[in-house]
Amino acid sequence: AEYGGSANLCSRNMSTLHLYATKNYTFGTKATQAKEKVGTALERHQAQFAAQGMRRTVEAVLIVQDHKTPMVLLLQDGKDFRLPGGHLRPGESETEGLSRKLTKGLSPLPGTADAVPQQWAIGELLGVWWRPKFEAYQYPYLPAYCTKPKECRKLYVVNLPPRTKFAVAKSFKLVAVPLFELYDNAAQFGPIISAIPQMLSRFTMMYN
Amino acid sequence: AEYGGSANLCSRNMSTLHLYATKNYTFGTKATQAKEKVGTALERHQAQFAAQGMRRTVEAVLIVQDHKTPMVLLLQDGKDFRLPGGHLRPGESETEGLSRKLTKGLSPLPGTADAVPQQWAIGELLGVWWRPKFEAYQYPYLPAYCTKPKECRKLYVVNLPPRTKFAVAKSFKLVAVPLFELYDNAAQFGPIISAIPQMLSRFTMMYN
Ligand SMILES: [Zn+2]
Ligand SMILES: [Zn+2]
Ligand SMILES: [Zn+2]
Ligand SMILES: [Zn+2]
Repeated sequence: AEYGGSANLCSRNMSTLHLYATKNYTFGTKATQAKEKVGTALERHQAQFAAQGMRRTVEAVLIVQDHKTPMVLLLQDGKDFRLPGGHLRPGESETEGLSRKLTKGLSPLPGTADAVPQQWAIGELLGVWWRPKFEAYQYPYLPAYCTKPKECRKLYVVNLPPRTKFAVAKSFKLVAVPLFELYDNAAQFGPIISAIPQMLSRFTMMYN
Repeated sequence: AEYGGSANLCSRNMSTLHLYATKNYTFGTKATQAKEKVGTALERHQAQFAAQGMRRTVEAVLIVQDHKTPMVLLLQDGKDFRLPGGHLRPGESETEGLSRKLTKGLSPLPGTADAVPQQWAIGELLGVWWRPKFEAYQYPYLPAYCTKPKECRKLYVVNLPPRTKFAVAKSFKLVAVPLFELYDNAAQFGPIISAIPQMLSRFTMMYN
């Protein structure tokens, strides 16, 4: 019997992800101007909460493959890793805001030689994390005591086209990290990114 | 603004789970005859693999609530915790096999005073775990080197009715464990059960 993929074993209730080889994508940089920031991240979050209420954050899980090993695209800044995405504006929908953030963070600048028409195919919701207090701790559930969460973070699968070009700000590196490196590795990637393998496990991966 | 549930914030792509209070359920025991087992668990798995190929295991995540804290039903045997469910028979479908195992493991015996008509409402797939070798290690992905996995374990949400009766073998205790106790607690619950909060985080919980 052939068990190479899980397609024929996982007939019921399985969503499918189509993954393309890393070599189909090009990874470049672009000139960007960093927005000037006032105060600490915590102070900015507190001021924003007072004005607009709970912060809504959306992030993308973009997956490529190398020899049938799924790999997640992460923005690396020294020892820090984060998912592409960001905070929504007041009234902005999740789809709209995540698309805006992905274009800003990952797409070559319009008008340059690398410019690509970028449509982001936002797929299934993978997980939701809540920040109950103005603290680092986030949880994959809203604690019962918490009636005013400070932030809601949602992770969506975003399906990549068979080939495209990425360009990120020079302060970052866009890296493809295999699931087996993320798994059980909260020390390096934190509790959210290290749980992506579990959140993806219900999907059938199709390797193209 | 009211953030108590996440319903109005999580409009896109959210599946909903209806949870009922623990007090709606009764937890009893039943007389069962343990099947006589030959050899070690590893020897049985190896013999079964030789005869039938990869072992297929299906398990249920049954959720109740107490004061809006979601709790997962686990079978406790001393310090060991496991999800209700078990191994499928050759040719048996996942739905059929999981229903058979849940009735065998959790339902009062037919013909007794506690007997209830039990229909198991098998819901969405939460996660899939693979055992590449005849060893304890299981992973939420199929490692690329592995062409003949030894076991595939699938976790499904099973939606409970508003009230019902459970009865388990006297050697077990059926316990309801809050998500916050499972979270980040692989030491007590193992890597699979402790990841249930992350796998459930994409659902909106409705407390009834
Ligand atoms: Zn931020
Ligand atoms: Zn709160
Ligand atoms: Zn077993
Ligand atoms: Zn193998």
